Amino acid sequence: MNDSIKYVLDETRLPRAWYNLQADLPRPLPPVLHPGTHQPVGPDDLAPLFPLELILQEVSTEREIPIPEPVRDVYRQWRPAPLYRARRLERALQTPARIYYKYEGVSPAGSHKPNTAVAQAFYNQQAGVKRLVTETGAGQWGSSLAFAGALFGLDVQVFMVRVSYDQKPYRRALMETYGARCTPSPSSETNAGRTILAKRADHPGSLGIAISEAVEVAAQRDDTKYALGSVLNHVLLHQTVIGQEAMAQMEMADDYPDVIVGCTGGGSNFAGIVFPYLGAQLRGGRKVGIVAIEPAACPSLTRGRYAYDFGDTGHLTPLTKMHTLGSTFTPPGFHAGGLRYHGMAPLVSHLKELGLIDARAYHQSQVFEAGVLFARAEGIVPAPEANHAVKGAIDEALRCKEEGVSRAILFNLCGHGHFDMQAYIDYFGGKLADLDYDEAELAMALAGLPSVPEPA
Amino acid sequence: MNDSIKYVLDETRLPRAWYNLQADLPRPLPPVLHPGTHQPVGPDDLAPLFPLELILQEVSTEREIPIPEPVRDVYRQWRPAPLYRARRLERALQTPARIYYKYEGVSPAGSHKPNTAVAQAFYNQQAGVKRLVTETGAGQWGSSLAFAGALFGLDVQVFMVRVSYDQKPYRRALMETYGARCTPSPSSETNAGRTILAKRADHPGSLGIAISEAVEVAAQRDDTKYALGSVLNHVLLHQTVIGQEAMAQMEMADDYPDVIVGCTGGGSNFAGIVFPYLGAQLRGGRKVGIVAIEPAACPSLTRGRYAYDFGDTGHLTPLTKMHTLGSTFTPPGFHAGGLRYHGMAPLVSHLKELGLIDARAYHQSQVFEAGVLFARAEGIVPAPEANHAVKGAIDEALRCKEEGVSRAILFNLCGHGHFDMQAYIDYFGGKLADLDYDEAELAMALAGLPSVPEPA
Repeated sequence: MNDSIKYVLDETRLPRAWYNLQADLPRPLPPVLHPGTHQPVGPDDLAPLFPLELILQEVSTEREIPIPEPVRDVYRQWRPAPLYRARRLERALQTPARIYYKYEGVSPAGSHKPNTAVAQAFYNQQAGVKRLVTETGAGQWGSSLAFAGALFGLDVQVFMVRVSYDQKPYRRALMETYGARCTPSPSSETNAGRTILAKRADHPGSLGIAISEAVEVAAQRDDTKYALGSVLNHVLLHQTVIGQEAMAQMEMADDYPDVIVGCTGGGSNFAGIVFPYLGAQLRGGRKVGIVAIEPAACPSLTRGRYAYDFGDTGHLTPLTKMHTLGSTFTPPGFHAGGLRYHGMAPLVSHLKELGLIDARAYHQSQVFEAGVLFARAEGIVPAPEANHAVKGAIDEALRCKEEGVSRAILFNLCGHGHFDMQAYIDYFGGKLADLDYDEAELAMALAGLPSVPEPA
Repeated sequence: MNDSIKYVLDETRLPRAWYNLQADLPRPLPPVLHPGTHQPVGPDDLAPLFPLELILQEVSTEREIPIPEPVRDVYRQWRPAPLYRARRLERALQTPARIYYKYEGVSPAGSHKPNTAVAQAFYNQQAGVKRLVTETGAGQWGSSLAFAGALFGLDVQVFMVRVSYDQKPYRRALMETYGARCTPSPSSETNAGRTILAKRADHPGSLGIAISEAVEVAAQRDDTKYALGSVLNHVLLHQTVIGQEAMAQMEMADDYPDVIVGCTGGGSNFAGIVFPYLGAQLRGGRKVGIVAIEPAACPSLTRGRYAYDFGDTGHLTPLTKMHTLGSTFTPPGFHAGGLRYHGMAPLVSHLKELGLIDARAYHQSQVFEAGVLFARAEGIVPAPEANHAVKGAIDEALRCKEEGVSRAILFNLCGHGHFDMQAYIDYFGGKLADLDYDEAELAMALAGLPSVPEPA
C-alpha cells in the first residue's frame, strides 16, 4: 500500500536518550536567578523542590541524556506514538500541501504530558521521595502525574485551578481514579492560598496561584517534592521523544518538513516536536520553518516582554528570563486551559529572541472551527490546546494552495478532546466568545515585573 | 527487551478478511423468521433496512469474507490494535497467571465499535445510500457510526436513549462534532416514539424503543438505511479483526490462551475476540475456555430464555432465536449502558446452547472495584462495559493463585472510560447501587414472548 496514512515505528526504535537542545544553542540560556540575591541559583537552591537528577538535567549541556530503562518500559505502553499523513484533511482543503501530524493522544492520560510525568515520577521514586505535589489547569498535567504516581507508588496531590475544578469534574475524577488527591486552588491548605482567599473568597484561581500552593507544600516536607508539567528545561527535554520519533517517521515517509507547527502554553509539546529538528538545523542540517501558535487571550510570545520574572503569583519561585505577561496577569477564562499561563518556557523564549522560531496568536472560535473540520476529516477530536496547532497547520496548507506550491507541514496533535466536550458544546451553541485580555491589566502586570540587573 | 508488555503487529499484518464462524459451526443457526408468516426471511425482506452486501454477509457460510481495501485503509488509522501483557496487574494481584488484554480503546471513537461502523458505512455508500439511521445507548455505537459517516460522506441520525441523552451530553457532543444529528428517544419523530410518549410523556427510553424508531425512519425512505451496532451476524463478523490480530500477537508472545474473557451486551466485542479462537478449536485446534461476562441487572445469557423474540420493543424487526429477557423488559439504569439490551446475539446464544461458552453475571460495584484496580495498575481507565471483562479476568487470575497454577488469560478491553467518568464519581461517592431487575417484570416480559412453532 503506497498510499499509507500511518507511520509506525517498531518498538526497538523507541528513543534511548532524550535530546538536549542546550548542547547546540548558538548562545547559552541566561541563568536562573535567586529572587533575593539576583545571583544565579545553584543545585542547593532547588534541592527542596526537585531530586538531584532532575536538577542536573535542568542545567546539563550534554547532547544526549539516556532514558532509564524503567521509564522506557512505561513509554512502551503507548510509544512510539503514530505519525499520520492527513490525506483526508488535505482532500477536504483541496491543498497541494503534504500535512503530517504526530499524535500524542494515544497515551493513557490522553496527551503528551505522561512523557515527562513518568520520568519525573521515576527520578523522585529513585531519590526516596514518597509524595509529589503539583498544580494543574485544564487537568491534562494533573491526570498525567496521577497516572505516573500510581505506577511508581507515589502519593500525588494536585492543586487544580478552581474554575477548572468546578467546570471539569471528569478530569478530577480521572485523577482520583488513578489514586491522586485533587484540591481546588486557591485553597486554605497553604499560606499562598489563604492570602488570596482573604482578598477574594470566590477567587477563580490561576495557574500562577496553584504553582505557589504546590511549591509551598513541597518545600515543607523532606519526603515531598514538587513537579512541574511544562516551562522548565528538564520537562522540555523529556518531551523530545516526540520529535525524535517524528524524524524517523518522516524518513519512513521519505519526506522532510518545510514547516513545523505546535501550540504553546508553557512550551513543552512544542519543544517536544521542534527541538530535535532545530538541533539538526543548528548542527548544519536542513533549515525548517517553525511556528508557535498561542491563544490571542494569553499571548506571551507575541505580546509579552522578554524579561526576568517569577514563575508563580506568590513569588516563591526563582526568576527566569522568558516572554512573560507578568506574574500577576490573569488571562480570561477561555477553553484551552493548558495554554493559560503568564510565561513561556525560557528555552522557547530564547529561541524566539534568537530569531529561530516565529509565533502567531489565534482567537478561540477560529481554532474550534479548525478543530471541527479536522475531526470530520481525520476522525480525531482534538483537545482545545491542540486545536491551535490544527489551525496553524491548516493556515499553512491554505497558503500552499494560494501559492500553488506543495510544502510538507508537520504539526503536533498533543492530545484528544474527550474531556473537553463542553468546549465543543459551547462552540456549536455559539457561546464561545473570542475573549480578549484586558490591556490595562496587562500593562499593570508588566509594570510590576521585578527589576533585575542584567547579569554580567 | 524480553520483559515486553506490548505486542504490536506490523501494518502488513492487518487482517485481509473477516472470519465467519458460520463456516465452522457444528449445527447451523436457526433461521430468522418473518414476524407475520413465521417463515424464514429472505433478502427481499431485509432490503428496506440493509444494503445487499450486508444481507449476504448475514447469511454467508463462507469462512473468509475479504475486507474491502477502503475499509482496511480506515482501519489502518488505529489497527492493528495493541495487545498487552498486564504485568503490573499480575504483580498487584500476586498471581501466577499470565494476563493479556487486547485494547480496542485506541480507535478514534474509543471502542471496538468503529470496526463495524466503518464497514457498514462503506457498503452503504457503495450502494448509493445517503443517510444512515441508528440507535445508541451509552453512545459508543452512535459516536462510532457518526465517525464512519463523516469519513464516507453519509448523513447520520442517531436515536439516543433519553436517559443517556440527558446524562451523557459529552457523548452527544462527540456525535455532533462528527456531524451527526442526535435525537432523544422516545421522540415525536416516529409512530413508535409517539405511541410510547402518549402512554408516558417522561419515558426514559430503552434500546428496544430506540431501535424501533430508527428502523421506522430507515424503512420510510429509499436513500436511507438502518445500521445496528451489535447482535446481527454481519456485525459480529466485522469484529473478528480483534481476535485474528490477538491470535497473531499471542503467537508473538509465544503463548496461547487457556481462557478468554469478554463482556456481553449484544455480543459483538465478545464475538470479536472469541470467534477466531473458537473457529480454530472447532476445526480441530486447541480447546480454550470461554467466559462471557454480563451485568447481573440485565442477564440475558444467565437468566434469559432461549427463544424466538423481536429485536425491538415496537416489534418492527424479524424474529431471531436468542437468549432473551423479553422485548418489553426494561433493565434498571446501571452505568454500563452498552450492556442494557434485552437480547443476546443469535450466534453467541447458539454457542451457549452448544455448550461451547460459559456465562457469568456481576453486579456493578464489583466491576468498578476491578476497574479501579486495573486503572491504577495498568494506567488505562476502562469503560463500564469493559470493567465486566476486567472483573472476569481478575477472578480467573485469583483462581490461578488459589490453585497455584499459571494459566494464560486473555480478555478484550473493548473501550476506555473517558466519557463515563460520572460512573466513577458515583462509585467513589458510594452512590453506585447494585441494581437488580424486577423479577415480576422479567416474568411478565418472558410470558409475552411471541409464540413461534419450531421450524421444520
